[in-house]
Amino acid sequence: MHGLMMDMPLLISSLIKHAAQYHGDTEIVTRTVEGPIHRYTYAEAHSRARRLANALKGLGVQQGDRIGTLAWNTHRHYEVYFAVSGMGAVCHTINPRLFHDQLTYIINHARDVYLFVDATLVPLVEQLADEIREVRGVVVLTDEAHMPKSDVLPRLICYESLLDEQRDDFDWPLLDENTASSLCYTSGTTGNPKGVLYSHRSNVLHTFGAALPDSLNLSARDVVMPVVPMFHANAWGMPYVTTMTGAKQVLPGPQLDPASLHELIESEGVTFSAAVPTVWLMLLSWLNETGNRVDSMKSVVIGGSACPRAMMETFGEKYGVNVRHAWGMTEMSPLGTMNTPLLRHANLSKKEYYDLCENQGRPIFGVEMKITDDEGRELPRDGKAFGDLRVRGLWVAKSYLGGAGSSAFDEDGWFSTGDVATLDANGYMRITDRSKDVIKSGGEWISSIDLENLAVGHPGVAEAAVIGVKHPKWDERPLLLIVRRKDSKLDKAEILTYLQDKVARWWMPDDVVFVDELPHTATGKLLKTKLREDFADYVLPTA
Amino acid sequence: MHGLMMDMPLLISSLIKHAAQYHGDTEIVTRTVEGPIHRYTYAEAHSRARRLANALKGLGVQQGDRIGTLAWNTHRHYEVYFAVSGMGAVCHTINPRLFHDQLTYIINHARDVYLFVDATLVPLVEQLADEIREVRGVVVLTDEAHMPKSDVLPRLICYESLLDEQRDDFDWPLLDENTASSLCYTSGTTGNPKGVLYSHRSNVLHTFGAALPDSLNLSARDVVMPVVPMFHANAWGMPYVTTMTGAKQVLPGPQLDPASLHELIESEGVTFSAAVPTVWLMLLSWLNETGNRVDSMKSVVIGGSACPRAMMETFGEKYGVNVRHAWGMTEMSPLGTMNTPLLRHANLSKKEYYDLCENQGRPIFGVEMKITDDEGRELPRDGKAFGDLRVRGLWVAKSYLGGAGSSAFDEDGWFSTGDVATLDANGYMRITDRSKDVIKSGGEWISSIDLENLAVGHPGVAEAAVIGVKHPKWDERPLLLIVRRKDSKLDKAEILTYLQDKVARWWMPDDVVFVDELPHTATGKLLKTKLREDFADYVLPTA
Repeated sequence: MHGLMMDMPLLISSLIKHAAQYHGDTEIVTRTVEGPIHRYTYAEAHSRARRLANALKGLGVQQGDRIGTLAWNTHRHYEVYFAVSGMGAVCHTINPRLFHDQLTYIINHARDVYLFVDATLVPLVEQLADEIREVRGVVVLTDEAHMPKSDVLPRLICYESLLDEQRDDFDWPLLDENTASSLCYTSGTTGNPKGVLYSHRSNVLHTFGAALPDSLNLSARDVVMPVVPMFHANAWGMPYVTTMTGAKQVLPGPQLDPASLHELIESEGVTFSAAVPTVWLMLLSWLNETGNRVDSMKSVVIGGSACPRAMMETFGEKYGVNVRHAWGMTEMSPLGTMNTPLLRHANLSKKEYYDLCENQGRPIFGVEMKITDDEGRELPRDGKAFGDLRVRGLWVAKSYLGGAGSSAFDEDGWFSTGDVATLDANGYMRITDRSKDVIKSGGEWISSIDLENLAVGHPGVAEAAVIGVKHPKWDERPLLLIVRRKDSKLDKAEILTYLQDKVARWWMPDDVVFVDELPHTATGKLLKTKLREDFADYVLPTA
Repeated sequence: MHGLMMDMPLLISSLIKHAAQYHGDTEIVTRTVEGPIHRYTYAEAHSRARRLANALKGLGVQQGDRIGTLAWNTHRHYEVYFAVSGMGAVCHTINPRLFHDQLTYIINHARDVYLFVDATLVPLVEQLADEIREVRGVVVLTDEAHMPKSDVLPRLICYESLLDEQRDDFDWPLLDENTASSLCYTSGTTGNPKGVLYSHRSNVLHTFGAALPDSLNLSARDVVMPVVPMFHANAWGMPYVTTMTGAKQVLPGPQLDPASLHELIESEGVTFSAAVPTVWLMLLSWLNETGNRVDSMKSVVIGGSACPRAMMETFGEKYGVNVRHAWGMTEMSPLGTMNTPLLRHANLSKKEYYDLCENQGRPIFGVEMKITDDEGRELPRDGKAFGDLRVRGLWVAKSYLGGAGSSAFDEDGWFSTGDVATLDANGYMRITDRSKDVIKSGGEWISSIDLENLAVGHPGVAEAAVIGVKHPKWDERPLLLIVRRKDSKLDKAEILTYLQDKVARWWMPDDVVFVDELPHTATGKLLKTKLREDFADYVLPTA
């Protein structure tokens, strides 16, 4: 027997319709790519998104077509998000920081029919022009006055002129909620990038989950500045969540330096922001140097990589900003866990509180997690055992576009995150390593990240990496690679003595190698595949 | 093109699985019907719900069968909610305060196969016994020691014994999310009660919407006491929302007197509660008399009928409790609007703030509203025009069980709420009347509720009712009925003079009648149908 409730699909267009209807004159403020501050309202954004939808129809865009974007966080990029998905096409956000070959692979694999590109990124697209043959035209997100010239790109369209020609009478179609809405490629350290194809349903459910008090906790009284890029996993869902809640938005455009961000925080009264640790590291350092504060800020969400404890303490104790440590993946729309305390934590000491904050948090309702051993058996949720982290849920991918990377999806419907983690009885999850980086020694696992974090605690260490190298008896043993700080004379004996009372005896690195630099990926992560290649034949000293 | 996201249905069983997994030792505290305080955890609740699901199977309950409940807010009622819906049957909550004929009508119309009944309500069921022939058995929500005897009811089953016989190895079935989960009848002032049949999908989506920061705003740090009964429109969704968020629950059982509620608030540290104004009126009066406070309370949601301004001011100014004024209907699962301020309201004066609070609030994302005139044309959202309030949304009924009351659902998919309201540009809605009570005078509408509220402002008025009576020229004109306060000598001239500068001239009642008492429904609302019958032939004085 079915219930007798209205049959209404979960659609991205409903979000912006709601904001335009009930938060019509709430502002969206942008630092434009051209420079000046632009401000308008949800009602105007909705009107322009509808004009864009008409324009897309005029360009021959069909439902299901992929539209690529190469753009910073601006009101125009926001309009593209809603117009493209809303009309039934697929908004494909592309990270302009990727390498040439990754960009061409992604655009061709997605079969993008148009690209919407910030003016400053047109030169980047020019370099790809010969290799992206299915792209019918490039729309530049600017007005006629700022249109770049291009000899290479045959069809360069001005976004503002495109909109000027259109009326805003577009009616959002009543799509099947499982219709694809957006696409984002995840670029690992190996193999080709893999596409995650979101649906309207998964995005709207993610938006509900992300807005909850124990998630981003956004209300109509918030002023939200997403620093995390809109080309990076839906900017952690913020374009959708702010729209659902009717929060004021502050979009920082391409200028992500501390002074520019601080200016927006102060002038617009930003209450909430979200970004990776690197951004906050720069901001905190700048605040410290200049003596500025961020008094309007109530909360920041930090994810993308583990948030250093000192950063959470500085935000909390010096600036009164509550840090929510989060974890997610492109494959998870992206939010998986968020660290907020429970009722029982009301009387924690500061030390205990920040201990808790070091976890990546508890799963949002809609996401399930487990950790498993090499044979796929579930491990205990005791905060100690660590294993492969597997997830499933309402906004988790079931496969990649085109079927790539199918080994990550098991037959019981779980997705292997590629992370190694602990889970405790209250659901707090802590990432201890990447699956491919964990060192398997005599049947037990050693966390490369834990060892690296300990090593960088030594004042003579600028950067550290730990990899497993072959060992005849133990299968693998840890090798510690260190970049010394300038003027440091640190040697092997000293760093090993330093680690000695900090880790279990069998975790101790078998050897230490000092190097001038360590290899990194395009997004700044340690490139351990390269290190493993370089040290494939390394012979460990015998004990 | 469909997205490539996991296909997971929205199921009520997911809520309690999540709570048991991630909030396993968070407490649910109950003042039992038997008297003592009972406390256990989400993990135990989940285990018992699974044992109950096995027991239901043992009783021959099939998916789609309706299971009636006549019970107060207790942990056992909570278990019935999740076990019945979780296994695929329909949890049919019944208001024990309804009249005999309504109860038999509802139980027979729903075709309930079992009733789950609090021990103290067994005598009520005994009176119905002859007329509810499809009910196969009555399960008494108590243990053997407290089992009542009954000569009338042939098959009286002890709930605790039923559970004792079962194991908790029940696997919740992976139902279609549109499966009916629960049923609640709405009893208007006319006609038979009408059944609203919720689905798993609508309830889970309502739970997301209800938990949002601008709705109930519940987190894992809250201690939630739902005073609104679980037989009344899902207790405004609280059994589900608390479970989704892992909040501690405090279930007050049958004792809703101020001293009992206050004892629980104090001893359990209640942070949040929800109830109709009458409950809070009694509590505030008791607090005032005894000098007690409710310092743990942060927020209360008040709905069911308009919340008096004085109540919001007393809660806010004297006790530091934030009041959220809400509006909903059984047909809406039930939450429709919630009153929270916007960013622009940050600097309101207290007077302006409480002016704002008098509205019933803004629609939660997932609910759309409009107001229409007699011909169904949409009226402006200007805060002045008032018309029939129509709604649609993710958790709004599309019809009543069995097709009754179909005139409330129009062909464009909107539900006529039967309320008359204003909407303003920011989406704030204000109920001004019931559709059938509004007085239509010369093509214009006069709000009976506005006139009643003004009249009770006179110190000599204990209660007031305004109805429309036939008028040869104006179609209808308002007649004011007054119950004087004890010892008051108020007369017609005085009350009319009192009203004169408070309403538009054409709103002034044409006559005033003093009566000893006014008729009420079972749930305490003015029974205006009776008044209209009684005064059908009333002849208004000629001006």
